[in-house]
Amino acid sequence: MPALPPGYSIRRLEAKDYEGVVETLKVLTVVGDVTKSQFEELVKYWNDTTLHIGVHSLPVYNPHVVVDETGRVVATGTVFIERKIIRGCGLVGHVEDIAVAEDQQGTQLGLLLIQHLTKLAHDRGCYKVILDCDQKNVGFYEKCGYRRCGVEMDHRL
Amino acid sequence: MPALPPGYSIRRLEAKDYEGVVETLKVLTVVGDVTKSQFEELVKYWNDTTLHIGVHSLPVYNPHVVVDETGRVVATGTVFIERKIIRGCGLVGHVEDIAVAEDQQGTQLGLLLIQHLTKLAHDRGCYKVILDCDQKNVGFYEKCGYRRCGVEMDHRL
Repeated sequence: MPALPPGYSIRRLEAKDYEGVVETLKVLTVVGDVTKSQFEELVKYWNDTTLHIGVHSLPVYNPHVVVDETGRVVATGTVFIERKIIRGCGLVGHVEDIAVAEDQQGTQLGLLLIQHLTKLAHDRGCYKVILDCDQKNVGFYEKCGYRRCGVEMDHRL
Repeated sequence: MPALPPGYSIRRLEAKDYEGVVETLKVLTVVGDVTKSQFEELVKYWNDTTLHIGVHSLPVYNPHVVVDETGRVVATGTVFIERKIIRGCGLVGHVEDIAVAEDQQGTQLGLLLIQHLTKLAHDRGCYKVILDCDQKNVGFYEKCGYRRCGVEMDHRL
């Protein structure tokens, strides 16, 4: 069972993580122009968006970061929770935007972050957790306990 | 350009659609025990969950139904809108739970519903709309203007 390197930790993303998160996400895709105030507004939205089931309230968005012993963001990813009708009004977790800093790849941070987000979603009652990935990353996600179950398709203008 | 049959319409799902939606979704998967009051509570949650960008407010969940000339639900599907950091704090639409009543299949209702939901998501500012499907449905979604872009993976307890 892998563990985080000494001094590393996983925690919920905070507004102060602006620079580290934006830098880390650039490994994954085009981040574009995201100002500090836009980031702070988005983090507030994520923090304020909750889901109420009976007496329970839980966050819909669960963005997380891995930080090293100096507090630097070295990985990020999120899982958000969708309320469906099917499966007895079931919940589904969607893992999104997993990125690991280039100098930290191959260190199992990605696997540990995925496992953390997956457990969080199941603990909150999700009957399944899904993610979409490139064909070349299927083996990695299989190591994380996922299995191939379908095809992702997209529509862009 | 296909059109709905005379008397058919597409509209947002309402609490009164309980029986028709539950029956229609059974074509797709296990719906399980969903009581009328659970359904009504879920529809209220979907209606109340909004996303604020600047001065604009828009619904996160956009469940829709196709009804025939008698008002019977003959198809259902939804698109929900996720707020991301990447792509300049971009929005992504997730099309989910598309189901067409068995006696209405082959009538283009699915295609018309997908086009409606996809346009809705783009009109609300989504830079892309994604969905996951079985391999056997790839050709159908290609006819709807989607293209294969990745692999869906899932994790279940």
